[in-house]
Amino acid sequence: MPKKIRLGLIGGGGDSLIGILHRIASFINDNYQIVGGVFSIDYEGNLEFANEIDVPTDRVYKDFDTFIEEEMKLPEDQRIQVCSVLTPNFLHYPMARKLLENGFHVICEKPMTMTLEEAHELQAIHRASGKVFALTHTYTGYPMVRQMKEMIKAGALGKIHKVDARYYQGWINPVIHDPEQRASVWRLDPEKAGISCCMGDIGTHAFNMIEYTTGLKVKSLLADFNYLYDDNVMDVDGNVLIRLDSHVKGVIRASQVATGEENGLAIAIYGEKAAFRWEQEKPNFLYKLSDTEPTQIYKPGHGYNSELSLAGTKLPPGHPEGIFDSMANIYLGAAKAIRGQSYDPAEYPTMEDGVRGLNFVEATVASHKGGNVWIDLED
Amino acid sequence: MPKKIRLGLIGGGGDSLIGILHRIASFINDNYQIVGGVFSIDYEGNLEFANEIDVPTDRVYKDFDTFIEEEMKLPEDQRIQVCSVLTPNFLHYPMARKLLENGFHVICEKPMTMTLEEAHELQAIHRASGKVFALTHTYTGYPMVRQMKEMIKAGALGKIHKVDARYYQGWINPVIHDPEQRASVWRLDPEKAGISCCMGDIGTHAFNMIEYTTGLKVKSLLADFNYLYDDNVMDVDGNVLIRLDSHVKGVIRASQVATGEENGLAIAIYGEKAAFRWEQEKPNFLYKLSDTEPTQIYKPGHGYNSELSLAGTKLPPGHPEGIFDSMANIYLGAAKAIRGQSYDPAEYPTMEDGVRGLNFVEATVASHKGGNVWIDLED
Amino acid sequence: MPKKIRLGLIGGGGDSLIGILHRIASFINDNYQIVGGVFSIDYEGNLEFANEIDVPTDRVYKDFDTFIEEEMKLPEDQRIQVCSVLTPNFLHYPMARKLLENGFHVICEKPMTMTLEEAHELQAIHRASGKVFALTHTYTGYPMVRQMKEMIKAGALGKIHKVDARYYQGWINPVIHDPEQRASVWRLDPEKAGISCCMGDIGTHAFNMIEYTTGLKVKSLLADFNYLYDDNVMDVDGNVLIRLDSHVKGVIRASQVATGEENGLAIAIYGEKAAFRWEQEKPNFLYKLSDTEPTQIYKPGHGYNSELSLAGTKLPPGHPEGIFDSMANIYLGAAKAIRGQSYDPAEYPTMEDGVRGLNFVEATVASHKGGNVWIDLED
Amino acid sequence: MPKKIRLGLIGGGGDSLIGILHRIASFINDNYQIVGGVFSIDYEGNLEFANEIDVPTDRVYKDFDTFIEEEMKLPEDQRIQVCSVLTPNFLHYPMARKLLENGFHVICEKPMTMTLEEAHELQAIHRASGKVFALTHTYTGYPMVRQMKEMIKAGALGKIHKVDARYYQGWINPVIHDPEQRASVWRLDPEKAGISCCMGDIGTHAFNMIEYTTGLKVKSLLADFNYLYDDNVMDVDGNVLIRLDSHVKGVIRASQVATGEENGLAIAIYGEKAAFRWEQEKPNFLYKLSDTEPTQIYKPGHGYNSELSLAGTKLPPGHPEGIFDSMANIYLGAAKAIRGQSYDPAEYPTMEDGVRGLNFVEATVASHKGGNVWIDLED
Repeated sequence: MPKKIRLGLIGGGGDSLIGILHRIASFINDNYQIVGGVFSIDYEGNLEFANEIDVPTDRVYKDFDTFIEEEMKLPEDQRIQVCSVLTPNFLHYPMARKLLENGFHVICEKPMTMTLEEAHELQAIHRASGKVFALTHTYTGYPMVRQMKEMIKAGALGKIHKVDARYYQGWINPVIHDPEQRASVWRLDPEKAGISCCMGDIGTHAFNMIEYTTGLKVKSLLADFNYLYDDNVMDVDGNVLIRLDSHVKGVIRASQVATGEENGLAIAIYGEKAAFRWEQEKPNFLYKLSDTEPTQIYKPGHGYNSELSLAGTKLPPGHPEGIFDSMANIYLGAAKAIRGQSYDPAEYPTMEDGVRGLNFVEATVASHKGGNVWIDLED
Repeated sequence: MPKKIRLGLIGGGGDSLIGILHRIASFINDNYQIVGGVFSIDYEGNLEFANEIDVPTDRVYKDFDTFIEEEMKLPEDQRIQVCSVLTPNFLHYPMARKLLENGFHVICEKPMTMTLEEAHELQAIHRASGKVFALTHTYTGYPMVRQMKEMIKAGALGKIHKVDARYYQGWINPVIHDPEQRASVWRLDPEKAGISCCMGDIGTHAFNMIEYTTGLKVKSLLADFNYLYDDNVMDVDGNVLIRLDSHVKGVIRASQVATGEENGLAIAIYGEKAAFRWEQEKPNFLYKLSDTEPTQIYKPGHGYNSELSLAGTKLPPGHPEGIFDSMANIYLGAAKAIRGQSYDPAEYPTMEDGVRGLNFVEATVASHKGGNVWIDLED
Repeated sequence: MPKKIRLGLIGGGGDSLIGILHRIASFINDNYQIVGGVFSIDYEGNLEFANEIDVPTDRVYKDFDTFIEEEMKLPEDQRIQVCSVLTPNFLHYPMARKLLENGFHVICEKPMTMTLEEAHELQAIHRASGKVFALTHTYTGYPMVRQMKEMIKAGALGKIHKVDARYYQGWINPVIHDPEQRASVWRLDPEKAGISCCMGDIGTHAFNMIEYTTGLKVKSLLADFNYLYDDNVMDVDGNVLIRLDSHVKGVIRASQVATGEENGLAIAIYGEKAAFRWEQEKPNFLYKLSDTEPTQIYKPGHGYNSELSLAGTKLPPGHPEGIFDSMANIYLGAAKAIRGQSYDPAEYPTMEDGVRGLNFVEATVASHKGGNVWIDLED
Repeated sequence: MPKKIRLGLIGGGGDSLIGILHRIASFINDNYQIVGGVFSIDYEGNLEFANEIDVPTDRVYKDFDTFIEEEMKLPEDQRIQVCSVLTPNFLHYPMARKLLENGFHVICEKPMTMTLEEAHELQAIHRASGKVFALTHTYTGYPMVRQMKEMIKAGALGKIHKVDARYYQGWINPVIHDPEQRASVWRLDPEKAGISCCMGDIGTHAFNMIEYTTGLKVKSLLADFNYLYDDNVMDVDGNVLIRLDSHVKGVIRASQVATGEENGLAIAIYGEKAAFRWEQEKPNFLYKLSDTEPTQIYKPGHGYNSELSLAGTKLPPGHPEGIFDSMANIYLGAAKAIRGQSYDPAEYPTMEDGVRGLNFVEATVASHKGGNVWIDLED
């Protein structure tokens, strides 16, 4: 194994949960070493945090521009190779752009950009850069999600006829039901959060899960949002009718007021021969349904799983791996790409997933605001 | 307890599954005695079947008209009091009509009629008759469904914001994928089966479950059907966006090509304070979700259940009761009504449920054929 | 189908749960007609109950002896053919004995007798009688239990190495923790309830489930009881080590103080090639485990099930059948035997199961009281 | 947060699963830095592995004795502070002993020693040393296991009456059924593996889980092993009757021939007021049962959990954490102890757990070999 990849973190300092998730994911599999970054906008806190996580402070920079400037002065074999962009949403695009333009690989949190237009711009820059860009649609890193994808590709379901995905959470309940809070949180302010709350934040994961596992593209959609209160202007719930290939239809349901649901991403895919059902909160149990055979429960680490699935499992069957391991699998795929090793394109979500995601979100908003009309997605 | 109610069966002979279901449901609780009927159109088979189930043949009639004619000659205290209408769909309306017009109580299989217009006519006749009319939306007989209804009425969820119901089956797969079969089965022939296959047969159960449990009415809907093949003209799958009260939205999903699903009726209801999840195939487990408290699993027969729920449980907790018991609970409610005893209106589905069901089905067809437009349901 | 079998009930009147269970089970499948019996010791209540369940009062007798005397006067083709014995435990033996001696078939509740000695006597009388004797170990009527038995017989598990069954309930908690109650209830009084409470009442079901499904015999056992309080002399909890064939071992766990458990009968059977897991409270889900293949979930009514299993399912897959249906399957088997039709010996539990059960209970008591020593069961 | 703790690994090189588990666990929470060790007995592989995981090779030693010798030459503030002992079982004792004697803290894999005698010796040395000794009974690190412990301590179950734990695996099947393999693997060779296979390896986890969660001590036990073949001398399956406090009894079941089971550790604890059920393969779902209230499902990260439980959860509810996180929680507890910070004694398993474990294993062997007699454990 070659030396560890030099990783920089932009954001993710302090008690940031996304910071913890990425940091641990980078440790697992021994591929990355955090050598610097800009953990927060507060320089003192920045340095303090570097001490906490035992990163030498000499490459902890006071802001993003300084980071770029100083790192570019270093010889290439010392320079940070890849940056994880964990900043607030509106910063993803400008930062990822500048990083790619300066020759850094990028691991970027979702949403990739605030608009589809930006996404296309970033896509062009990425193509020109020749660098690795990984988007952390974390849930596609689960071994059983990858197993679904592989078995579908191998024909286990036959022709697919229906897809049904949801992402249900209840977390926004205390916010939305309080008039003051719903008027003030950034999530429900289009100026700060962009055009969509629920679809942008979680609906897009359900959308990505469908395209990732089935290999099909959503061609058009029709959305209906629920704002819950007249004085709220951001979607906190919605249902989306989707059409994929000819005679392939489906539905995406997303909600942040699904009381009691925690991180309820789930997918069901029905084909001519068989079907899959999977739920994120029980990620190690994949159900394969048939009209004529007993339902089968696939679990990680078994010899019957595909190579792609097995690559994402570290321990023998029965040792539950979770969300950190799922993210770690995406970091693992990115590491292979960064090192120029051979890898399966399914090992990490890409720029193209990011563009699709923005396309999806904008289309749902256009559909809802247009009076629940069908909106085509890009080819 | 008074003497048993004299029950006649119209249809349901031979190996008819619906016949078995209704017969057993009528036995349970000791309220009914089958004293005659017209079990099938074949008179010989009719008599033979009467022998099999030990019903005296003297009141087994050669056809429905004879049934009416002969029974009306009997003194009222010997005459059949209630008829279960278990015939093919298109006969439900004329038979139920004639029965009500002649003063019989009616227990009717679903769909109540072929059209909303017929439903309204039947409703008027029913009102004039003063007789009991029970529609066998079987699944509302489950104790935990009734528990949901009661707890929602008592405010356990607070204001409801989202409802999500599905009914998934895979049974039509072998039919739909075979060009010859899909061109010939009555289910996919609008002349014989009416305007809808999937929505009429099972979507309507999901719709009924929503209105039964929440006490809310669906005000408008937008449907998208899937026919799967260009040469198929009946829906075998569909997704329906629904709107209930102001800021209450939801979705109904129905499919007969959901491979491997058996009788997959399920409902999730999300309110401001809590939520319910329930699945028909595990009918004795009701999940109550909260953002702040542990999920609770309600089970039948416990003292914490409502009176309505407990009335539908015969044995102590842990003794699984199933679909026959659910149907029996509907027969039990109808028996109370027939006898003029006091009962809870929630104890059996009524004419109004039937009208709503037809309204729903016609609206989904109108929406889909109109280009996925919003269609209002009747007030 | 021949005419219905004339059934008499001994016990089971009023709100008796066991009465409801047997009555409904006898209705399902259209094989039996209740024509008389002795429902309770109170003659007035007896007659009243007959009216309630619409049984002609002319064959409702004031006591068991009168029942025998009067029925024997009737010509054989009018006489009650089979009696269900639903009386308190200590009456099972004398009543079953007299019934068999007088040429009646018997369906008998568990425990069959109070002692192994009585069981042997009854066995001898039964052999001489040539009559049908069915013991209602209800749980062996479930279609998935029968599927286990058939698949094991067909070698699906290979050689069995370990069996593990439990029956956990919490119902005795409020009784046992109250000094007055535990000193007074008949269940905890050896004079009235016999030598064992927990093992006799429920442990024996777990034992029967093992022998029924595996086809193996328990050869010896070692038991340890828990009485919970010094002033309690009846077992309310116990664990039993068991040995079956050479190198086949296992454990039976039974408890009536397993707080929150309702009717928690469960079995796991581990063989060289595969294993089964099944739980009574989710009776329609049978899990087949393998070291190398995905776990399979078998469900009732599918073509992949055995004939014996399918014979016990009335509706298509996905329509949950429950405890009444399980008991009905035992009544169905007994009906075939009574009519001299061909049937599978696995269709109802027999005298031999009853003898084994008493042998088991006496052995557990002997083991515990002997200081947790190994006790052999009869060959 | 102070600087990272200097960690040395003894064993765990190459593809060692236990190595991966400990390494990742040490990364999570940012407390440890691996600065050296002896990863394998092959010095070349040792150095190569150090490169792979990016550990400077100057503190990678050729063997354990050299490790001690060289590290002791370093000033205390550079010296490795704690060693994880991941070597084959028979080396745990001599290595842990020498480490403690030389003033290192120790994190030790299970079994702590080969005999109870050794365990006592180690205990004495440990006491004298004043150093931290953590035994990696990994499963006690799960947040819901800790929640059980805390709620039991707070009286949620009332007086406990029954405990029931199992650890079922199927992994030894292919070995045990092959005469050549079972004669040759080290696991089934008492010379190499010690006196017990199944009880020592996994039964002891079930035992530890009981004592950890209930706070009770097993006072005596009676075991019955299954060897499966006459030519096999090591237990591969066994059932153990246990007695705890007065009138508190239970059972431990362990098997390595439980076909299809993967890592099937589970526990049920029944008290006067309520009960807990938990399974390792679904570690984030804790069931609390009651006779009178709905079953409750506790999940990690919620405000209703105890401080001890919450300390072991890094992300909001619904983000599944798994076995690495469980082990990480033990490393976290050890880190607090090593740094002299305040911590809850329940945060990591100790020397005392190790002594108890050896006591348990030896007692089961003595019981089985003594003819299934009761053996007392030490006070």
